[in-house]
Amino acid sequence: MADKFKLPARYGAGEKSVWVEYIQLAAEYKPKVNLGQGFPDYHSPDHVTKNLAQITTSDNPLLNQYTRGFGHPTLVANLSKLYSPLVNRQIDPQNEILVTAGAYEALYSAILGHVDEGDEVVVIEPFFDCYEFMIKCAGGVARFIPLKPKVTDSETQTSAQWVLDKAELESLFSDRTKMIILNTPHNPTGKVFTMEELQMVADLCKKYNVLCVADEVYEWMVFEPKKHIRIATLPGMWDRTITIGSAGKTFSVTGWKTGWAYGPAALMRNLQVVHQNCVYTCCTPVQEAIARSLEFELSRRDSPDCYLRSLARELLPKRDFVVKSLKENGFNPYVPEAGYFIIADWTKLGDKIDLSKESDRYNDYRFTKKFAKEAGVLAIPPSAFYSEQNKNLGENYARFCFIKKDENLALADKLMRDWNSSKKQ
Amino acid sequence: MADKFKLPARYGAGEKSVWVEYIQLAAEYKPKVNLGQGFPDYHSPDHVTKNLAQITTSDNPLLNQYTRGFGHPTLVANLSKLYSPLVNRQIDPQNEILVTAGAYEALYSAILGHVDEGDEVVVIEPFFDCYEFMIKCAGGVARFIPLKPKVTDSETQTSAQWVLDKAELESLFSDRTKMIILNTPHNPTGKVFTMEELQMVADLCKKYNVLCVADEVYEWMVFEPKKHIRIATLPGMWDRTITIGSAGKTFSVTGWKTGWAYGPAALMRNLQVVHQNCVYTCCTPVQEAIARSLEFELSRRDSPDCYLRSLARELLPKRDFVVKSLKENGFNPYVPEAGYFIIADWTKLGDKIDLSKESDRYNDYRFTKKFAKEAGVLAIPPSAFYSEQNKNLGENYARFCFIKKDENLALADKLMRDWNSSKKQ
Repeated sequence: MADKFKLPARYGAGEKSVWVEYIQLAAEYKPKVNLGQGFPDYHSPDHVTKNLAQITTSDNPLLNQYTRGFGHPTLVANLSKLYSPLVNRQIDPQNEILVTAGAYEALYSAILGHVDEGDEVVVIEPFFDCYEFMIKCAGGVARFIPLKPKVTDSETQTSAQWVLDKAELESLFSDRTKMIILNTPHNPTGKVFTMEELQMVADLCKKYNVLCVADEVYEWMVFEPKKHIRIATLPGMWDRTITIGSAGKTFSVTGWKTGWAYGPAALMRNLQVVHQNCVYTCCTPVQEAIARSLEFELSRRDSPDCYLRSLARELLPKRDFVVKSLKENGFNPYVPEAGYFIIADWTKLGDKIDLSKESDRYNDYRFTKKFAKEAGVLAIPPSAFYSEQNKNLGENYARFCFIKKDENLALADKLMRDWNSSKKQ
Repeated sequence: MADKFKLPARYGAGEKSVWVEYIQLAAEYKPKVNLGQGFPDYHSPDHVTKNLAQITTSDNPLLNQYTRGFGHPTLVANLSKLYSPLVNRQIDPQNEILVTAGAYEALYSAILGHVDEGDEVVVIEPFFDCYEFMIKCAGGVARFIPLKPKVTDSETQTSAQWVLDKAELESLFSDRTKMIILNTPHNPTGKVFTMEELQMVADLCKKYNVLCVADEVYEWMVFEPKKHIRIATLPGMWDRTITIGSAGKTFSVTGWKTGWAYGPAALMRNLQVVHQNCVYTCCTPVQEAIARSLEFELSRRDSPDCYLRSLARELLPKRDFVVKSLKENGFNPYVPEAGYFIIADWTKLGDKIDLSKESDRYNDYRFTKKFAKEAGVLAIPPSAFYSEQNKNLGENYARFCFIKKDENLALADKLMRDWNSSKKQ
């Protein structure tokens, strides 16, 4: 019987997810500080959660029932209000926006909705690991190109050093190329793609008639003076770009699992078909709460208190604290220009930690597991964000999340100091 | 450009959904009473919505952040407590339950997780329309068999008259058959499959080594003396059954979009892979609210106030009212044994309504649209729940939803009476 019910071929062997493994690990090792998965361990903005509480217990019973499948009317209306000025055109809430079960399902709908058997998709490494699964499950072929850190003389390394090789990028494009996935601001490096880099991608998309899926879920966490540029705003790009955003990231409520995609109606139609097929409609009270929260933020859009502006300001001292702490504890971090992750080289600590007893194939898995056990601080192994053939490029690093309470960041600092001291004895 | 970005072949032409069409229609025609889509227009149980309000604004910020992908720990624990006694075995909350973005995503994960290129799936008509899309998108082949209403002398027709032909059912099974989808209680007829009928299905599943996906989302809305039987409890069936349930249906919060599947770990693994690929994790505060609501209902499981028992009692007078109203207004309804839909034959009204100007291919689409425009009462055309070759079997019927406020049901009755009177003049 078992054999007949094996996994369909399109899912491969049912690849292990680093998230399933490291969430399990956190439960087992009970590290004192978990800087692994990307979510805040402190309160979301008050008005956001109060909105949900008021909506679900309101006088209108329909706010707890099914709503429009492609997006709750008030939410798509407010998303149009938010993004239209940012992409310099009026976005049609009915046909150019799709609300999804997290940005994750938006990616799934974009990839499954456009990638057909044998189509090629250009993926920039390191990448959010789900891209590869989704491409494979669509029958597509991922073509990988790594960002590589430029070596500099500067004492401070930043995410801007992670760059693409132009010739290598162009070599991946052909008439088989259907899509490129562009993640900016970038997870896990924190890189914000520059206008020149985006122009290079846009030129290739136009030259080879390729669709760009722009994963911009970290759009509101960009540290000054860096600016987030939406590739959909580059000349000729609106018509070939699907941009993805996330309420979870925007409002620090990752558990609400609500995201969206926007783009031209002709491209969005394919996403609607996938969405209609797998989830059909999203949580109504959560969508209404996000709609009202957006309305509130739009009403104070020019105030420094607007959460879309204050979030990055709030994260900046956390970033600087963790960067300093990592440096002082023997890591070599790349200061992120955006987002809430830091990629840090751990290899200078190599002689202080015995990885020989760890059974994982890649050193970053060994290091992060051993470090969690010894120091009590959990990070994520970035080789999970590389293709099979390039996993070695991630092995020297660990990814630390810093959207955590100051007291927990301070505790991580203390734990790392204690660990270092213990190694000197 | 357009041609390159057409829908991948697996989605066909991107079939029109009756839901998208009829929700749109409701917005356009503004019928005075909408008995179309299946959701209550009145309040969900107080404790359920209060739980969500308390959780999202609680002192624990993690309740608004990502949780375990395969199901929030408290929810899978309480689902195990709910279902273990009902299936006469201890269900392992970690490996035998998956929480999904609605029962819809549970169906998707079950079908995509098990149906491979060319596999056959037996589908009983009329069926919840998404089954067919999902099977096609998995590369499977649906083999349809209609329930047919037995003609009786009795003045009262009931959903029990809709039956399968045993020889016809067996003729669909072969070594190509991977799965049968069994929906009991059944939408749209309200039929509750009897032990004899389930045994017939179970025998075929065992004989041909076939998996049974049991869609049981209407499990708590069964009218006495009928009893819901879980096919997973039949001898030899646990190991080959995936059962699907819905928080939206259970607690009258369809907009919360939370469902689940349970079954043996070996079969559930495939669903986990699909879920991990398309949605990854579900809404945390909603899952915690459902967990607490289940805990409360379990604490009063033997009380008549338990919502899992009171819901059917609450629906019974609504059912009887609408059945009577439909009869008195020229329809021929089948009294449902469960659920909140009534299938009614409208053909006796045929000479009162001019369908010749309606452009739809099938008469039930024409009738429901014209009736909504003339009488102000919207119903759903059941041919949407039949395969292409059998749509004619649904043409004489309309589906009415009766989980609506008494005043709206009374208004529907009045509108139908007024319409009938106007036709006599």
